[in-house]
Amino acid sequence: MLEKDVSTLMGYRKGIRVVDATLRDGGLCNNHRFTDEFVKALYLTNIKAGVDYMEVGYKGSKELFSRDKYGTWKFSDDEDIRAVIGDNEGTGLKLAVMADVGRCDYKEDIHPKAESPVDMIRVATYVNTIPAALDMIKDAKDKGYEVSCNIMAISAAQEVDIKVALDMLGESPVDVIYIVDSFGSLYPEQIARIADIYLNVAEKYDKKIGMHAHNNQQLAFANTIEAVGDGVDFLDATYDGMGRGAGNCSMENLLGLLRNPKYNLYPAIKFVEEYTRPLKKEGVHWGYDLQYLMTGILNQHPRTAIAFTKEGRTDYTDYYTEITSQD
Amino acid sequence: MLEKDVSTLMGYRKGIRVVDATLRDGGLCNNHRFTDEFVKALYLTNIKAGVDYMEVGYKGSKELFSRDKYGTWKFSDDEDIRAVIGDNEGTGLKLAVMADVGRCDYKEDIHPKAESPVDMIRVATYVNTIPAALDMIKDAKDKGYEVSCNIMAISAAQEVDIKVALDMLGESPVDVIYIVDSFGSLYPEQIARIADIYLNVAEKYDKKIGMHAHNNQQLAFANTIEAVGDGVDFLDATYDGMGRGAGNCSMENLLGLLRNPKYNLYPAIKFVEEYTRPLKKEGVHWGYDLQYLMTGILNQHPRTAIAFTKEGRTDYTDYYTEITSQD
Repeated sequence: MLEKDVSTLMGYRKGIRVVDATLRDGGLCNNHRFTDEFVKALYLTNIKAGVDYMEVGYKGSKELFSRDKYGTWKFSDDEDIRAVIGDNEGTGLKLAVMADVGRCDYKEDIHPKAESPVDMIRVATYVNTIPAALDMIKDAKDKGYEVSCNIMAISAAQEVDIKVALDMLGESPVDVIYIVDSFGSLYPEQIARIADIYLNVAEKYDKKIGMHAHNNQQLAFANTIEAVGDGVDFLDATYDGMGRGAGNCSMENLLGLLRNPKYNLYPAIKFVEEYTRPLKKEGVHWGYDLQYLMTGILNQHPRTAIAFTKEGRTDYTDYYTEITSQD
Repeated sequence: MLEKDVSTLMGYRKGIRVVDATLRDGGLCNNHRFTDEFVKALYLTNIKAGVDYMEVGYKGSKELFSRDKYGTWKFSDDEDIRAVIGDNEGTGLKLAVMADVGRCDYKEDIHPKAESPVDMIRVATYVNTIPAALDMIKDAKDKGYEVSCNIMAISAAQEVDIKVALDMLGESPVDVIYIVDSFGSLYPEQIARIADIYLNVAEKYDKKIGMHAHNNQQLAFANTIEAVGDGVDFLDATYDGMGRGAGNCSMENLLGLLRNPKYNLYPAIKFVEEYTRPLKKEGVHWGYDLQYLMTGILNQHPRTAIAFTKEGRTDYTDYYTEITSQD
């Protein structure tokens, strides 16, 4: 465990990597329908801000998801990335895509790294689908990618199962294993305890650990601070906190914390001003509110809170009664 | 130091006191012009929610502040408290008022406890006005009150000066000494370090320590969690986080955390739905936004950010350039 003291706020750890998940997690707010201008501006912002990875979206199955309903970044085809972003050569920024277990035709849709502008495949799984995730990790690794694995919804899983999953991942070729607080229900003290478990596995198997937080309890940034203080290196953030439901750790918060001079706050402020705030004005919803706090406290998936938001409801007490109903 | 582990999230410490500062810090958003209905509903909500103290407002000097410009709760006269709230007898809720050094005619305006419905005087001071604060503390104590002291803006003070101030307060009859993050600039790791300093004084002189957080960096709740885990007992919160600028730790967040069954979340949700959200709709401003993040990161008073908000500005990049100007 690293010392967690004010002194660490002056220095920095060179191994820290900032991952922009705006198009992927934020895309859940608008079915990944971003304009090319937005995507290009985000890409240039990430380069200026010193961000290390940009997750451009999902590798969604075209069998399961229709092109009519979803935008380009639900699928993140190599040619679409190239059309908007280019080949991304000579920048310090790496590109990532997320591949969900059971919702991705990874054998066909993920091409060899040599043919793709993508650098990292992020495999997302629940604890009970780890064997399928391992297949995907091997496939991506064999194709030449960096690979991370996000174990989702751990706040609703048994600790013993998580430990088994971590050992299985430890023995796989995965590079980074993510702590994911899908329901935004975890407190910093719990993050510290979970990080300790993950970091022990990381040390044993020579892996890196990442943190992906949600802001249901206004703790996404705080939990990310906790994680980085504990020794977690890969930090997910999104501009303006744009992400499913209450959203994520905001990039502005995170860049304001990190002391490595490679990171710059100003481009992040500019992007929020010029791109995410206009999206909010257009009616795309995300961000902390009472309904997300409630599902966070109750350790529930925020889907009912998202529906509450979409319906424009403000009867928070009725909603609380609904979601605490024992019927 | 208490153990800070997930295990403490199941038990609770009986010494914890929740202080509702909505009328006082929230009053800074509307010049303390609350309707009697709002105040009465807040009072009843606090009783139902199990809140321990309700701060009804300031004891502002009538020489310095005009009744035309400010509402009732800038002055918090005993007769006004009685007119709206009553004598507050037989409830578990105590009433508090804030008395600012240099902005309060405390000798005249604070009457003996036997004649007042107020239970606690909260003296607010900067480090350099501690001698004046000590006079006010003695006056309030002699009149029969519980007394707390808030040392404001400590993030801009020297640690050696804070330590001298703490020793002076330790030797005074004050009951509670507050950690106050006036600029919302402190990270949890800094709160831990500051809490350690304050708690050493508390132990030496048999005092209690309190936490008053601001949400500039979306850390008001996280810093309050950090403080309570460190052994801080008095926790300030406001409904909907209503307070100056980015606001405070929200009562809903805090009540969702605390495990003592005396605390109830539902009345807090109801109050937000019925009272604070309508205030926001009427145009009263508070809550996290980029301009407050910037002053928090820069450890500046948020007054320029509050002005930016009032003017309806959204040119965040221009604002950032202004407040980082070296001219």
